[in-house]
Amino acid sequence: MAGLTDVPGVRVAHVTLGDGARTGVTCVLPHSRDLLADPVTAAVHVVNGYGKPVGLAQVAELGEIETPVVLTNTLGVGAAHEGIVRHLLARHPDLGRPTTVNPVVLECNDGRLNDLRALAVRPEHVLEAVRLAEARPDGHEVEEGAVGAGHGMVAFGWKGGIGTASAPVDDRVWRATLGALVLTNMGRPEDLVVRGVAVDARPPGGGVGGERDSGEGGGRDIPGGGERDSGEGGGQDIGGGNGDGEGAQGLAADPVDGSVIVLLATDAPLDSRQLGRLARRAQNGLARTGVPTAHGSGEFVLAWTTARPEHRRDGDWLRPWFAAVADVVEEAVLSSMRAARTTVGCDGSVVHRCPVL
Amino acid sequence: MAGLTDVPGVRVAHVTLGDGARTGVTCVLPHSRDLLADPVTAAVHVVNGYGKPVGLAQVAELGEIETPVVLTNTLGVGAAHEGIVRHLLARHPDLGRPTTVNPVVLECNDGRLNDLRALAVRPEHVLEAVRLAEARPDGHEVEEGAVGAGHGMVAFGWKGGIGTASAPVDDRVWRATLGALVLTNMGRPEDLVVRGVAVDARPPGGGVGGERDSGEGGGRDIPGGGERDSGEGGGQDIGGGNGDGEGAQGLAADPVDGSVIVLLATDAPLDSRQLGRLARRAQNGLARTGVPTAHGSGEFVLAWTTARPEHRRDGDWLRPWFAAVADVVEEAVLSSMRAARTTVGCDGSVVHRCPVL
Amino acid sequence: MAGLTDVPGVRVAHVTLGDGARTGVTCVLPHSRDLLADPVTAAVHVVNGYGKPVGLAQVAELGEIETPVVLTNTLGVGAAHEGIVRHLLARHPDLGRPTTVNPVVLECNDGRLNDLRALAVRPEHVLEAVRLAEARPDGHEVEEGAVGAGHGMVAFGWKGGIGTASAPVDDRVWRATLGALVLTNMGRPEDLVVRGVAVDARPPGGGVGGERDSGEGGGRDIPGGGERDSGEGGGQDIGGGNGDGEGAQGLAADPVDGSVIVLLATDAPLDSRQLGRLARRAQNGLARTGVPTAHGSGEFVLAWTTARPEHRRDGDWLRPWFAAVADVVEEAVLSSMRAARTTVGCDGSVVHRCPVL
Amino acid sequence: MAGLTDVPGVRVAHVTLGDGARTGVTCVLPHSRDLLADPVTAAVHVVNGYGKPVGLAQVAELGEIETPVVLTNTLGVGAAHEGIVRHLLARHPDLGRPTTVNPVVLECNDGRLNDLRALAVRPEHVLEAVRLAEARPDGHEVEEGAVGAGHGMVAFGWKGGIGTASAPVDDRVWRATLGALVLTNMGRPEDLVVRGVAVDARPPGGGVGGERDSGEGGGRDIPGGGERDSGEGGGQDIGGGNGDGEGAQGLAADPVDGSVIVLLATDAPLDSRQLGRLARRAQNGLARTGVPTAHGSGEFVLAWTTARPEHRRDGDWLRPWFAAVADVVEEAVLSSMRAARTTVGCDGSVVHRCPVL
Repeated sequence: MAGLTDVPGVRVAHVTLGDGARTGVTCVLPHSRDLLADPVTAAVHVVNGYGKPVGLAQVAELGEIETPVVLTNTLGVGAAHEGIVRHLLARHPDLGRPTTVNPVVLECNDGRLNDLRALAVRPEHVLEAVRLAEARPDGHEVEEGAVGAGHGMVAFGWKGGIGTASAPVDDRVWRATLGALVLTNMGRPEDLVVRGVAVDARPPGGGVGGERDSGEGGGRDIPGGGERDSGEGGGQDIGGGNGDGEGAQGLAADPVDGSVIVLLATDAPLDSRQLGRLARRAQNGLARTGVPTAHGSGEFVLAWTTARPEHRRDGDWLRPWFAAVADVVEEAVLSSMRAARTTVGCDGSVVHRCPVL
Repeated sequence: MAGLTDVPGVRVAHVTLGDGARTGVTCVLPHSRDLLADPVTAAVHVVNGYGKPVGLAQVAELGEIETPVVLTNTLGVGAAHEGIVRHLLARHPDLGRPTTVNPVVLECNDGRLNDLRALAVRPEHVLEAVRLAEARPDGHEVEEGAVGAGHGMVAFGWKGGIGTASAPVDDRVWRATLGALVLTNMGRPEDLVVRGVAVDARPPGGGVGGERDSGEGGGRDIPGGGERDSGEGGGQDIGGGNGDGEGAQGLAADPVDGSVIVLLATDAPLDSRQLGRLARRAQNGLARTGVPTAHGSGEFVLAWTTARPEHRRDGDWLRPWFAAVADVVEEAVLSSMRAARTTVGCDGSVVHRCPVL
Repeated sequence: MAGLTDVPGVRVAHVTLGDGARTGVTCVLPHSRDLLADPVTAAVHVVNGYGKPVGLAQVAELGEIETPVVLTNTLGVGAAHEGIVRHLLARHPDLGRPTTVNPVVLECNDGRLNDLRALAVRPEHVLEAVRLAEARPDGHEVEEGAVGAGHGMVAFGWKGGIGTASAPVDDRVWRATLGALVLTNMGRPEDLVVRGVAVDARPPGGGVGGERDSGEGGGRDIPGGGERDSGEGGGQDIGGGNGDGEGAQGLAADPVDGSVIVLLATDAPLDSRQLGRLARRAQNGLARTGVPTAHGSGEFVLAWTTARPEHRRDGDWLRPWFAAVADVVEEAVLSSMRAARTTVGCDGSVVHRCPVL
Repeated sequence: MAGLTDVPGVRVAHVTLGDGARTGVTCVLPHSRDLLADPVTAAVHVVNGYGKPVGLAQVAELGEIETPVVLTNTLGVGAAHEGIVRHLLARHPDLGRPTTVNPVVLECNDGRLNDLRALAVRPEHVLEAVRLAEARPDGHEVEEGAVGAGHGMVAFGWKGGIGTASAPVDDRVWRATLGALVLTNMGRPEDLVVRGVAVDARPPGGGVGGERDSGEGGGRDIPGGGERDSGEGGGQDIGGGNGDGEGAQGLAADPVDGSVIVLLATDAPLDSRQLGRLARRAQNGLARTGVPTAHGSGEFVLAWTTARPEHRRDGDWLRPWFAAVADVVEEAVLSSMRAARTTVGCDGSVVHRCPVL
């Protein structure tokens, strides 16, 4: 199983930035057709609105996605928006005369490993990611872990990033595929649950996220990863080291939440309202892995179908669909960590691959 | 710990109907003061809107609850509404001249054990439950399980009903209590997870909910309990199997979802928006116990504070609050089953107490 | 044009209570078929949630109405709920074994003319209203004004109640009818606007609603009618008279807002999301008549189609639909007042028919 | 009265692009303090979600705005986002280490007069607009009409753009100011209503928007202005007709909706939920001017207070607030047109100042 791309027509490509950046862009084509002319039916669910998505209001209003969906870091949202716009202007000579378009961008904060202030993501990266995605075939493999938008993400204090999974669903009328792709950047080590088992492991040199005293009013957004390499132990791990007292101070000043983005795709002819019902079950899958839905964790779910909706009354036939949502989301979260590799941040800090996955 | 009533001022009382009924009324006083004159600040969250609550639109608009909160069975909602109205008309001679009031009633379908068609719940039961609740002291114990509205409820195919739990929360500025009370009536045996462990147990004579073929369009609401004791007599079925073709037929006609109601109370001065954020974390606690958030399961969360709200910016201090929500909801669900006793339904069918709790 | 009933299949009937009551029940059948077996596709919009509707959560979740829709007074909601339940139990021997049903009840506060405390509306009134509605033919006339649920309602300080209107809509693909039925019970005399003209008229003996000093925290629900017949003048108008100083006192204590309920029906195959977009345009029609969307005015819109939805992308073709919503809602509000007759309240106070309509 | 800036602390500045562009940027500082450290309490309301705003999900979740609010054209949203980010990175050396920020950008489509494809708005324009805004004093005048983001906007087929208005509100406890600023870009000539009077005027050379045949699936976003000056040269069109078949063809291809953005500010200590209630009344003011809330018209309302919220139960005291919202929004819309000047578009087409305002 390839994951999200097991849904025919869906394409995924990453642009992973180098040159010291620990960030990137992941482009998901909801379908391989011309989306602006022929959008996919879609729905949105906001689990926790502490995030900076672009384009969701119109998806909610019209029940449609009409552009590639781009994932990137929080401060790269503007560049990603412009990238989608430039891609479509190039493709559609009539766009902007005077019609417009609704780019969809979702983000997590990779600022623990990445230098957010560099604004490394540029519109060109989106253009490249779209180009790569368009060149891929049906059912292609999806690179997971520390790639594309997942380059600098941290999940449960371990290296996270891109994960994907899919499952066949047969409700006795419709046989189709449900796929999930997640960008994981949330939770602390002590939160992680793997198939029902609380994982009692801590990253080397850290994992003390629970002892932070953040004081009042810490409303700032925050990078993924519940723990923070806190100095005395973690420093020499790889060579970095951020001092001592300063490390403690860093901890005190650090927010600890992150975010998680969930994309769900299917080729069953569900309508927008039904896709919204699916999207609301993603929280069940997240909860199974221990995601705490923390204050500063932007958790957004976007669901679509590549099929043209058919009218079918809601009923018990939704049971396997709802169950599959929780399953593929849980599996995609774990897969994002399983596929990730230990990564050294811009500042020399290290986030380890979770050894128990 | 007594549960929800550990929050000072909160009162709970049950009226459990006899005379062959397997239903009842549970009255929760959000505070012991005159609620109509001095409402509590509140919020609502709808996890799955397949339910028949009364009063939630106004709670959402104004952020207030101004009456007792009554739980009962699905078809008893009208009677419960009138019961609250009659209680308040008796108490407030000016009510209706021409002001009105917003009763809050929440329900689950206890039709597996109870004869819903009897409409056994009457307004007088609410008046009695309110009277009993008002007579109770701070911190009183709450009867759990098959009492009050929980009399006929079925959770994960086992006997469910009323459960409650509470936890102290200390966010370094506010020290307060968070309590939950749930009415559990959802899930199938194979869904149940107890502290991370999937429970591999089936109720005697049933638990085959997973094999039902519900066909198309089964949009009807449904009683709690994933399985249905399908023996024709019901009497002998305590150890019996599930018959034969007829059993399968019964299964085929049966809807299988249920509902779960979650009440959250605190004495911390959170405002309505913040209470809404707490309410949205209840799904995490439900998911931990395996609640599938099924199509036909009405899942509603009502949260309130007995304190007057104080303005405090959202921040990381919400972490222990959000964590406590998941914890008390999980614990309350398990407690509803632990406290329940094996119950014989109006038709002689039996729902067993879960032996592993 | 008959109004809402110009949509084939839609039926409306009133039960107007006598014996001193100034209230009643209006039953709307969204379609003449068996709704429980074959619901209509629907949507809900809440303009101002200060109201006590029943059943809207499930309509929003499933996009369906599966029962008659009943309008009545605020404290009669419980009885109306039970009336719908009793109607359906009688009709459907399997209902409650163990399936349930989602009754839809909407209300306004008629406490200015009606003695709310009498709880005059009983389940039997709903059974009678359903029986009457079912006996009617396609396209039947709808009595408007002070009938059924409109018996005691007050709009802009004048007699309001039931109003209806319809319009043909042709979007070049679909030719169909859009109908509205409203229950008007909101606004003050100075708010009323008739086709763009502010109506500078005051009811005899009153219309001083604007000078009330309600003090803090007046969160109680309130009867329709911005003004209150305040005694010295209005009393002898018709013979009533509610004293003097007491009248003034009454004014001071009285909240002044009301509510308005809007039902929209069509036979075009719109889907639930699109019906929701229509419903959100009802506020435009209300605003044209001067409805202030006051704090205590519960304003709810319920929209449905009698057709089976067909998938059609949203586009400019919605323009005539959106325009028609505002038009039929405006016209229905005016019609509710035009059709109303001067009515003497339970306490002898008088609400006059608006002479300029 | 200066309008929105009558609320102490609020600042507004425009950057109106030259060099052939017909677009720009309007920067609104919700308060003159450091917003990132000390956000304003806020709320969002979506009237019609056909739009491309940035930042609203987090405002809704946290009830706060923490950055300048920028208005611009639809395709400039990404650049405006990056402009806000760059402004804040320069101001806050710790931003991005690893905290982030939630920029708020709102837009309308000025593609009728502006060459959207040029992507003329750059991050630097935002930096300049913020600089200009910060230099302004309390209560400063706000330029209206075809300035800043309003440069190329079209309202009711006439020149629209930026408009503002304010009113004092005295609810007997709080005396404060309510201000509105709008960006108008919606409606057709035949929709316009000025203080209750339908304006029977058509722009020269056009105004025949009502006769368009848009066909199916026209889901593209669209520039403001219900009509389209279809003369090929645009020069002669001040008194010209609209040609012949080509005019009709042009119309046929043109989408006709637009958008309108409403900002509401006050210095009364309302909380986020109450601000949301205010925001929902903006539609009443828009409806009074004839805004049709068309399919493709993104209509978003953002409301904030510069004060620290105080807990006060909702009650009739909200009446003057709700009335003031409708009043200032209506007045701001009219003011946007009154202040505008006839403008020649990039392609030589002309949009006239409405002569009856």
